[in-house]
Amino acid sequence: MQDTHISLAHGNGGRYMRELIEDLFSRHLKNPGLDVQADAVPLHLEEAGEILFTTDGFTVQPLEFPGGNIGSLAVHGTTNDLAVAGAVPRYLSLNAFIEEGFEVDQLERIIKGIAAAAEQTGCRVVAGDTKVVRRGEGGGVYLATTGVGIRRQGLALSLQRIRPGDKLLVSGPIGDHGIAVMLAREQFGLHGDLHSDAGSVLQLAQSLLNLSGLHFMRDPTRGGLATVAHEICRATGHQVRLEQDRIPVRDSVQSVCEMLGYDPLFLACEGRIVALVSDSDADAALRAWRALPEGRSAGIIGQITEGDPHVILETELGGARILEELEDDPLPRIC
Amino acid sequence: MQDTHISLAHGNGGRYMRELIEDLFSRHLKNPGLDVQADAVPLHLEEAGEILFTTDGFTVQPLEFPGGNIGSLAVHGTTNDLAVAGAVPRYLSLNAFIEEGFEVDQLERIIKGIAAAAEQTGCRVVAGDTKVVRRGEGGGVYLATTGVGIRRQGLALSLQRIRPGDKLLVSGPIGDHGIAVMLAREQFGLHGDLHSDAGSVLQLAQSLLNLSGLHFMRDPTRGGLATVAHEICRATGHQVRLEQDRIPVRDSVQSVCEMLGYDPLFLACEGRIVALVSDSDADAALRAWRALPEGRSAGIIGQITEGDPHVILETELGGARILEELEDDPLPRIC
Repeated sequence: MQDTHISLAHGNGGRYMRELIEDLFSRHLKNPGLDVQADAVPLHLEEAGEILFTTDGFTVQPLEFPGGNIGSLAVHGTTNDLAVAGAVPRYLSLNAFIEEGFEVDQLERIIKGIAAAAEQTGCRVVAGDTKVVRRGEGGGVYLATTGVGIRRQGLALSLQRIRPGDKLLVSGPIGDHGIAVMLAREQFGLHGDLHSDAGSVLQLAQSLLNLSGLHFMRDPTRGGLATVAHEICRATGHQVRLEQDRIPVRDSVQSVCEMLGYDPLFLACEGRIVALVSDSDADAALRAWRALPEGRSAGIIGQITEGDPHVILETELGGARILEELEDDPLPRIC
Repeated sequence: MQDTHISLAHGNGGRYMRELIEDLFSRHLKNPGLDVQADAVPLHLEEAGEILFTTDGFTVQPLEFPGGNIGSLAVHGTTNDLAVAGAVPRYLSLNAFIEEGFEVDQLERIIKGIAAAAEQTGCRVVAGDTKVVRRGEGGGVYLATTGVGIRRQGLALSLQRIRPGDKLLVSGPIGDHGIAVMLAREQFGLHGDLHSDAGSVLQLAQSLLNLSGLHFMRDPTRGGLATVAHEICRATGHQVRLEQDRIPVRDSVQSVCEMLGYDPLFLACEGRIVALVSDSDADAALRAWRALPEGRSAGIIGQITEGDPHVILETELGGARILEELEDDPLPRIC
């Protein structure tokens, strides 16, 4: 398209909108299932299994950060929700709310991020819509993605399957995404090799599905690992005990957290999984994860017990404290 | 929930967000398929047929207008896209981008609009996400909805099936939604009984599916009837001839258009269908529509011919002119 910036006319249903969709969205997202002329498209789901469905909105600021952008994040965020439910992502819909005046080059980088992440995950964007909102009413770009995947029949993962004695595993260091976005946003003058962990957890998730002791998985995004622990606690009525010195945190993330007063336990990850696995299968799960490049820092970091329904953090010095639920967000607009 | 206005904490993944979702969204949208604890939910699609998929974003201003609100509009808009593709809507996902400071009472009215429209259409909201954006960065509420429906196997409706000789039908008066929203927005001091036509076209669409001469349907939303005519023209390479005096337009809509310089042909409808039907089945289609309350003003308003690929408007005085494609939007933010 010839324009360098988005105008309200790109959202009006006429020629400009068609050019925006054809020249930018369709060109990069091109695939046999995408039909920009159709009101609705057929989904071809040949595999036997349950059809899973999930959706997410994305408002991260800044829109681009080390390790990704709002486009790649939107695809990984939604497909990861399917992956931790045990499904293989197949199709995505994409909504873009674009602010008047937004730079077309940046929009193109975001769309390329969507295309690359979709290809990496093996799924296709087959339906989409764009809306243009007035200057000042949009934060640049917001995205919403809805995903459809297929899960093997009979695979039941749920909070309700978690039992006392289950081990809690995490697939990699926590807090990378939160800190990478925060540093990109705040320009503290802190430099380093900190990248968001935004990425697909599909292989990690798939690698555990043959373990009968796998009870539940979740990706710790908004609110971080601590929030997943609280969800488990609330849903099961059991106690969640985390061992602080076993939780993988990069030195660089730890340093920034200490400097600025953040707790990595509450920071968003966008490429990690928490898994709840029976004691007897926990070591097998750990081995499966560590055999994958994205799981080589995986650890068994806690367990479920029959005590009072609290999240307990066992500290390195042998103490233990109740970890309270997140109330004020340390880092808003992280996804 | 106790708060009267939305704060950033309602988007942070912690306790406030849980309360917002449980007390407002889940309460009104409650159904057996909705599981706010799960990352992804199974879709139960027992009927044989193709699975259809569609998505739409909504940024209408004002958020409430005579005949609906952004919530009911989002459900009707997305389910209507399934309906005109020949499908029965079954499931929806819902994304809400809510601006900090938004009034909880108004949010509740919007959610009630979603619930009522979903119930009316026989589909369920089973997945959702909310994000809160900073004050001034959101236009109150934006919604994105993705729909899944089932279409009878072998039912092929497409622009490519349109043939010269096909008749063009519209199911009711055009422009009601555009004018109702515009009057609600601009406060011209014009009063009257003008309501948006926002509503379900499912019965209208279903009533034609047994006609072998049914080739294509579309709901004329952004860009109106004229934009649908241009899409047909572009996709088929044929001429679309519209007879101005056969196009149903309410007197009140016509009056406002004349006063303010709008052309109803370019105004959005949110509860109408355009159908392309073979000459031999056109009367049967018209009878089917007129037998329904929402179709009693339906008309045969034009036809496809083999002339140059233009949209031609035959005027009441026997003249004919080329109807140009929409470039500048007469009424932005209409859906």
